[in-house]
Amino acid sequence: MNPVLDDISHRRYNPLRGNWILVSPHRTKRPWQGQEEGPSKNTLPEYDPKCYLCPRNKRSGGAQNPDYQETYIFVNDFSAVKEDQVDYETETTATADKSSLLMRAEGVKGKCFVVCFSPAHNKTLADMSIKEISLVVETWKNLYKDVQQNTPFRYIQIFENKGESMGCSNPHAHCQAWTTSHLPEEPAAELKNMIEYRKKNNSCLLCDYLALELEKKERIIAENDGWLAVCPWWAFWPFETLVISKKCIKNILEIEGERDVDLFAEIISTITIKYDNLFETKFPYSMGIHQAPLRGTDEEHAANHVHFHFLPPLLRSATVKKFQVGYELLAEPQRDITPEQAARRLQALSTELYRNKLEGSA
Amino acid sequence: MNPVLDDISHRRYNPLRGNWILVSPHRTKRPWQGQEEGPSKNTLPEYDPKCYLCPRNKRSGGAQNPDYQETYIFVNDFSAVKEDQVDYETETTATADKSSLLMRAEGVKGKCFVVCFSPAHNKTLADMSIKEISLVVETWKNLYKDVQQNTPFRYIQIFENKGESMGCSNPHAHCQAWTTSHLPEEPAAELKNMIEYRKKNNSCLLCDYLALELEKKERIIAENDGWLAVCPWWAFWPFETLVISKKCIKNILEIEGERDVDLFAEIISTITIKYDNLFETKFPYSMGIHQAPLRGTDEEHAANHVHFHFLPPLLRSATVKKFQVGYELLAEPQRDITPEQAARRLQALSTELYRNKLEGSA
Ligand SMILES: [Zn+2]
Ligand SMILES: [Zn+2]
Repeated sequence: MNPVLDDISHRRYNPLRGNWILVSPHRTKRPWQGQEEGPSKNTLPEYDPKCYLCPRNKRSGGAQNPDYQETYIFVNDFSAVKEDQVDYETETTATADKSSLLMRAEGVKGKCFVVCFSPAHNKTLADMSIKEISLVVETWKNLYKDVQQNTPFRYIQIFENKGESMGCSNPHAHCQAWTTSHLPEEPAAELKNMIEYRKKNNSCLLCDYLALELEKKERIIAENDGWLAVCPWWAFWPFETLVISKKCIKNILEIEGERDVDLFAEIISTITIKYDNLFETKFPYSMGIHQAPLRGTDEEHAANHVHFHFLPPLLRSATVKKFQVGYELLAEPQRDITPEQAARRLQALSTELYRNKLEGSA
Repeated sequence: MNPVLDDISHRRYNPLRGNWILVSPHRTKRPWQGQEEGPSKNTLPEYDPKCYLCPRNKRSGGAQNPDYQETYIFVNDFSAVKEDQVDYETETTATADKSSLLMRAEGVKGKCFVVCFSPAHNKTLADMSIKEISLVVETWKNLYKDVQQNTPFRYIQIFENKGESMGCSNPHAHCQAWTTSHLPEEPAAELKNMIEYRKKNNSCLLCDYLALELEKKERIIAENDGWLAVCPWWAFWPFETLVISKKCIKNILEIEGERDVDLFAEIISTITIKYDNLFETKFPYSMGIHQAPLRGTDEEHAANHVHFHFLPPLLRSATVKKFQVGYELLAEPQRDITPEQAARRLQALSTELYRNKLEGSA
């Protein structure tokens, strides 16, 4: 990398999302008096009678969880989208012309699922074995297949929201999967850029990016035979990670066979353990998988390349969090440490979970 | 409005920014165990010897503030961009072709200012008189003129970041103004859409939107002879406000004459008082002015229309904050209450500040 970028203010372009990020690497010494969070410890019980995700407990919707032993999937009791609702038609009035340009709306149908990763109330992905994570991957694959075959919906967004500082209401490890009648903004923007890139360059955007990162070796955090994890060139969150499949697969159904599933599970394990080790805390993040639509054109399918994003808010310690406010909301996303600096720190970390070596940890 | 939108999941399009928002109005009863903040009280002193923004105090950069009586402006001691730095040239290597597509960067120069609204440590915009706010408006105008005449920069982003929950490190009311060699993402996206709208429809996007909102009267929060404040059709934040100039002015220099400046100050006063009255707290927000670039083409100038955005995170009370996480980061921004419901609540509120009637308030 041009070493001058370690020192000067600059912008970097995210060709996947199509936006720019302001990078201010000289700025890491400014004072901080913001909100502080206590460090999290693994003091949770294996079973919590008040947790609506633990086996055998009642949920607030009234349903009772089974005595599940591996993963458990159910329809969210407070779904953001519903399967059954009236169809929406745009209004027609005297001002319909301008309204239809400036006050556009469209109905959205869908279904929201919750996937518990394990019956244990106190196990995050970082605490789980490769085999246990593989069961989660299999559950995701089954869900993708199920909604593709049995619903009319266009996209499924699998995402995990972890940690109180991310507004997550329950420490019992789980993810959500929202399937919708439309292709949402983020995967839509990525898909548009991947399609354009493919047309212009006759190659896959993420295949080309993967090759560049493997050659430059400046932003690699972890790697195995199936996956590469980098702090991407255009990272916005301080310790953001982009995990790219080495094969140009289109959706997670193409992760076939035990070994490939295990490689997927392994890279998730490595990333989440490194994250927890970074500040010796249960590292909060939002994570999500981007892949081909459930229902898409041939062009949409061909241009895709499975990847997932980890978007963590922590900045300098377990108690200092990045806020996305002010200039970032009104003008442009901004970061202080460079992605290369962040990648070096994550790269150097052990893949053994810090709290397994602590006395008194569950 | 079509009443069905009060009940069903739908998406709304933001023609100014060019993105979609998912609206889930049926979802306002889901449980919440997220982070809580204490309600803020006006117990601050008028002068705080430890505040780096109060008159006569030393800043951490070493400079001493003057004994200012009205507003006070200075260059940020920890600027995100600098006036003087080396120029950046993209690297040329064997892989320069793909690098130049996938690892693009450009140097950014600029200058960051801080503007203290008043010498009083304990006065927010909601506490200030119209005359005091008018002085702030004049300061913004002078700054715009100054950087336009005396710097080479392309854009100035004036923004206020208020409240601990927005990561703001100091309660002494102030805004920032970052002027940069480039046009940042948000105003650039808006400008692109305004230019396209103008070409297609031979009219101004925000003039047309203003007329529609005045006709429909469903999302109006406040209004005077100069400005209209609405919770926009496409609002993302629960109580987001878009304040639009009634005249199609291009930048704040065109707010000429005492009466026009006072109307500007008045609408700011009204919005910030209503915000504080909503949950009887010092309402946090990020606020910013969007206007014509300091240096732009004729087309860019013509398509512009001065407006400002208030983006507040509070959701249901002084202690329940919206988190932008999970699905929103990975897939699509989402809100629960409709903009019409939010507007009705803000519209109904008094324009007298609640804490002026409380005993023991400063
Ligand atoms: Zn993606
Ligand atoms: Zn704007």
